[in-house]
Amino acid sequence: MYARRFYTLSGSCPDQVGIIARVSGFIARNGGWILASSYHADHGNGDSGGRYFMRMEVKADSLPFHLFEFRERFRPLAEELSMDWKISDSSVKRRVVVMVSKQEHCLYDLLARWQARELDIEIPCVIANHDTFRSFVEWHGIPFHYVPVRPESRDAANAEIARIFEEVKGDTIVLARYMQILPSDFCERYPGQIINIHHSFLPSFVGARPYHQAYQRGVKLIGATCHYVTPDLDQGPIIEQDVIRIDHSDSVDDMVRYGKDIEKAVLARGLRYHLEDRVLVHANKTVIFR
Amino acid sequence: MYARRFYTLSGSCPDQVGIIARVSGFIARNGGWILASSYHADHGNGDSGGRYFMRMEVKADSLPFHLFEFRERFRPLAEELSMDWKISDSSVKRRVVVMVSKQEHCLYDLLARWQARELDIEIPCVIANHDTFRSFVEWHGIPFHYVPVRPESRDAANAEIARIFEEVKGDTIVLARYMQILPSDFCERYPGQIINIHHSFLPSFVGARPYHQAYQRGVKLIGATCHYVTPDLDQGPIIEQDVIRIDHSDSVDDMVRYGKDIEKAVLARGLRYHLEDRVLVHANKTVIFR
Amino acid sequence: MYARRFYTLSGSCPDQVGIIARVSGFIARNGGWILASSYHADHGNGDSGGRYFMRMEVKADSLPFHLFEFRERFRPLAEELSMDWKISDSSVKRRVVVMVSKQEHCLYDLLARWQARELDIEIPCVIANHDTFRSFVEWHGIPFHYVPVRPESRDAANAEIARIFEEVKGDTIVLARYMQILPSDFCERYPGQIINIHHSFLPSFVGARPYHQAYQRGVKLIGATCHYVTPDLDQGPIIEQDVIRIDHSDSVDDMVRYGKDIEKAVLARGLRYHLEDRVLVHANKTVIFR
Amino acid sequence: MYARRFYTLSGSCPDQVGIIARVSGFIARNGGWILASSYHADHGNGDSGGRYFMRMEVKADSLPFHLFEFRERFRPLAEELSMDWKISDSSVKRRVVVMVSKQEHCLYDLLARWQARELDIEIPCVIANHDTFRSFVEWHGIPFHYVPVRPESRDAANAEIARIFEEVKGDTIVLARYMQILPSDFCERYPGQIINIHHSFLPSFVGARPYHQAYQRGVKLIGATCHYVTPDLDQGPIIEQDVIRIDHSDSVDDMVRYGKDIEKAVLARGLRYHLEDRVLVHANKTVIFR
Repeated sequence: MYARRFYTLSGSCPDQVGIIARVSGFIARNGGWILASSYHADHGNGDSGGRYFMRMEVKADSLPFHLFEFRERFRPLAEELSMDWKISDSSVKRRVVVMVSKQEHCLYDLLARWQARELDIEIPCVIANHDTFRSFVEWHGIPFHYVPVRPESRDAANAEIARIFEEVKGDTIVLARYMQILPSDFCERYPGQIINIHHSFLPSFVGARPYHQAYQRGVKLIGATCHYVTPDLDQGPIIEQDVIRIDHSDSVDDMVRYGKDIEKAVLARGLRYHLEDRVLVHANKTVIFR
Repeated sequence: MYARRFYTLSGSCPDQVGIIARVSGFIARNGGWILASSYHADHGNGDSGGRYFMRMEVKADSLPFHLFEFRERFRPLAEELSMDWKISDSSVKRRVVVMVSKQEHCLYDLLARWQARELDIEIPCVIANHDTFRSFVEWHGIPFHYVPVRPESRDAANAEIARIFEEVKGDTIVLARYMQILPSDFCERYPGQIINIHHSFLPSFVGARPYHQAYQRGVKLIGATCHYVTPDLDQGPIIEQDVIRIDHSDSVDDMVRYGKDIEKAVLARGLRYHLEDRVLVHANKTVIFR
Repeated sequence: MYARRFYTLSGSCPDQVGIIARVSGFIARNGGWILASSYHADHGNGDSGGRYFMRMEVKADSLPFHLFEFRERFRPLAEELSMDWKISDSSVKRRVVVMVSKQEHCLYDLLARWQARELDIEIPCVIANHDTFRSFVEWHGIPFHYVPVRPESRDAANAEIARIFEEVKGDTIVLARYMQILPSDFCERYPGQIINIHHSFLPSFVGARPYHQAYQRGVKLIGATCHYVTPDLDQGPIIEQDVIRIDHSDSVDDMVRYGKDIEKAVLARGLRYHLEDRVLVHANKTVIFR
Repeated sequence: MYARRFYTLSGSCPDQVGIIARVSGFIARNGGWILASSYHADHGNGDSGGRYFMRMEVKADSLPFHLFEFRERFRPLAEELSMDWKISDSSVKRRVVVMVSKQEHCLYDLLARWQARELDIEIPCVIANHDTFRSFVEWHGIPFHYVPVRPESRDAANAEIARIFEEVKGDTIVLARYMQILPSDFCERYPGQIINIHHSFLPSFVGARPYHQAYQRGVKLIGATCHYVTPDLDQGPIIEQDVIRIDHSDSVDDMVRYGKDIEKAVLARGLRYHLEDRVLVHANKTVIFR
């Protein structure tokens, strides 16, 4: 964590000899001070055909140009390397739309982190399918949109959500225990931009009422999973997971209560990784440069 | 966790043969349904001179009398056993005064749990030495008292805090990262009623700036400790502790950030144990019946 | 953990008022000193029809009679309560047959605990489907039986295993990464006596090659599960579980390596709970009185 | 973890612009395939005067020369950068001398890992101040040296230990619960080569009987610390730590038992980091490139 401004360059490409040298050479030739850098080569089970992942933080004022020019100058190298890449500026705050239902734990947790500038983001609005938290959200100076989702109005509601997200120029949607399923085309329109917190240690207990499922099976730990939303329910790339110990004396209600603590912690960590461009997705799996 | 009403009987006494039989016999003779019960005998390193600890939840409507009469009838047995004991009623909400300074993480966390009735308590007021969270607290319908503590007015401020606590008939004070030290006589007046969250894994890093101390020593885990406040700074009986992994890449600021997550989780667990009469103190140590 | 001798009485019965009082009263009337006791009432989601579980440690020399007479005297009360129960003597060592294949981690771990008397058991023999560890086991003074399991001789091999188990008067079989499936009738003959360690966090990744499955799904934690063996593969009552964090840089081989540490720790804890009569099974779930 | 042969280049130097570019450029110009690389810049609390740490794994057969020539060619660049560095060859096994006393848990654990080639090292000998494990060690084909340490013969014993370590050309000494204190001059002669496992979560409970200290203080977690040995008792750079939860029902003996599990796990992880050149020491702290 730096008070100073920096650019984050991240991406992946087919592995070959010399990638670090070429990318770091490009930065060094321009005087760029690399504050942090991480690399990973994934060769699966073989030795060839691997994929290379990287993330670098470069001190902004060590470079003689700004982001736009960085992009122009870096593009030819990225093309030679067939790299999927992006660069972001730590001084430009991400715009995160939070979606909730009637449970408060994730909402309070996110707003506390936002209030303390631990999450240094803009929250252009909160969207909810219940009106419960309107004044709480508005107390924070954040607009609140109540978009009820009823069977007969589901399509209209989802269209309205998409419209709001576009209108506020959101980068990321966080489903902070938003209990509705987003339609496939919505998920496909924003790949790697919608983050969900699921209240089980996936792949155990997919779908509804995971704590009831856990109770029935008699497991000794319960968990939560933060993942990108894809059209396949609870099957998207996993960003972060954690568990907590339970025992025979815990009822389903107790599990729900413990689970909330894990849910908000896992969501906060996963969201942070996402916001800091620490997550690189490949083939339904994630590389997380912590 | 039960929706139904129950009494919690807890206490400790010198160990001897037959305590469970006598106490549970007393309850059974009165038709009392024991919902949960826990026992512990601590013999230190020897075989005699031990101490016996117990906690029972008895279904309220299974007994033919109320709390007052329970107390009257149980007293003779308790005296025979030389038991320190108390009994509480799950339908009587505890009155918890929360004290804060300028950091929000524990305050948000406690209010979210209170809002969700996960913490089923009254919060008669919040007391703070900064005015920062007045409107946030008041949004929740909770009175907010701003009691600034300056070197020249410290005694008056502490007297005012005591006055408010008495006036609102508080049971418990939670120091939710309240950055002032309470005077010895204040601590002594409310033994086992003041709960603090310290931002280190005690006994490591007592006192100020524990994360700086942890950074200097190069530890690989940092922690937090919830304990009862006694006149000896950071030396009171420990209720709950936890840790989180860090590494060389984490600055002091990162530790502060991770630490907050541990602090609020540990405080919430410790407070719950306290409120549910799960904590029995003996000789600066605690028995926690989870 | 006591140096002294004690009896462990454990069991379960339909819940009703007064069970603790009657059982502890029986013990107290006979002068029995209860060293530790645990109770649990499971009412599922309802209020009636619950089941009551209990476990007590009674100091042996505080009673005026021995185990045989205890059994005789306690039986009428147990029958009144419709209790499934047993009582064991801490001075009688359990006889645990360990079954292994070619992986050493669980075997070394169990023998180290046995050698240090941390596991205070008899190991009348080790049975293996490979001859790899014969001299290592024999160095410890423990007989080693090599029973190869080939497709054409599977029935004969399993019959031989059963014969050895009976011959050595074993109480418990530990499958310490024994890579063969025991036949259904074998599992049914010894309910609650065969303990397996499965190398995943069940119910995720049932069956073969769980680490490969975990790698494919991109989970962020891997685990292990200690459970009683029933005819349904990996579906028996879970005794203990734990997990360890992994990340994108970990190959399947790394997972196997980390997993071993979890496997041996979880097996050792689960086995200890079993040996100390801390595990009560009901309806494919376990109550663990830790 | 790779089956293939690789070189590990690790080191640290004053931070400046372009270090990665120059080092990775050197490797790329020679055709070197970087399998894994990690970097860290530590600027303490300021912006200048930082220190740079790095570690790279380079595929051995991707380079046109061997280790000796690599060293010659890399030296000028390392001197320009004022780098403390070393390079090692994955095909050359480290020679680790294990020292024990009368407790078996760490010894069994290390030998099991060695037996399974999880620890791919040579163990040229075990040195012990008790003769207890002679035949167990010798069963593994490893020479065993019994060097009793008595007050009157302490100097001679330590001289003998040093003589053996030199004679067997050891790289590393592991104090696997060796209960003697090595003399200062011994510690100074082998900086960063002697690894100890201490049975507490340092800096809590330095010195003797840490579990007794933990019991007295009533902590809720106990731990273990793997660190390099320096002349200051229990003050050396920390490599790895972990903790385990305990509660009021745990005696000192129980803590000892739980503690063993943490000790062996923490020692094994710390030793692995050391053996794979993942540990860089600076100013009594460690950078661990996991």
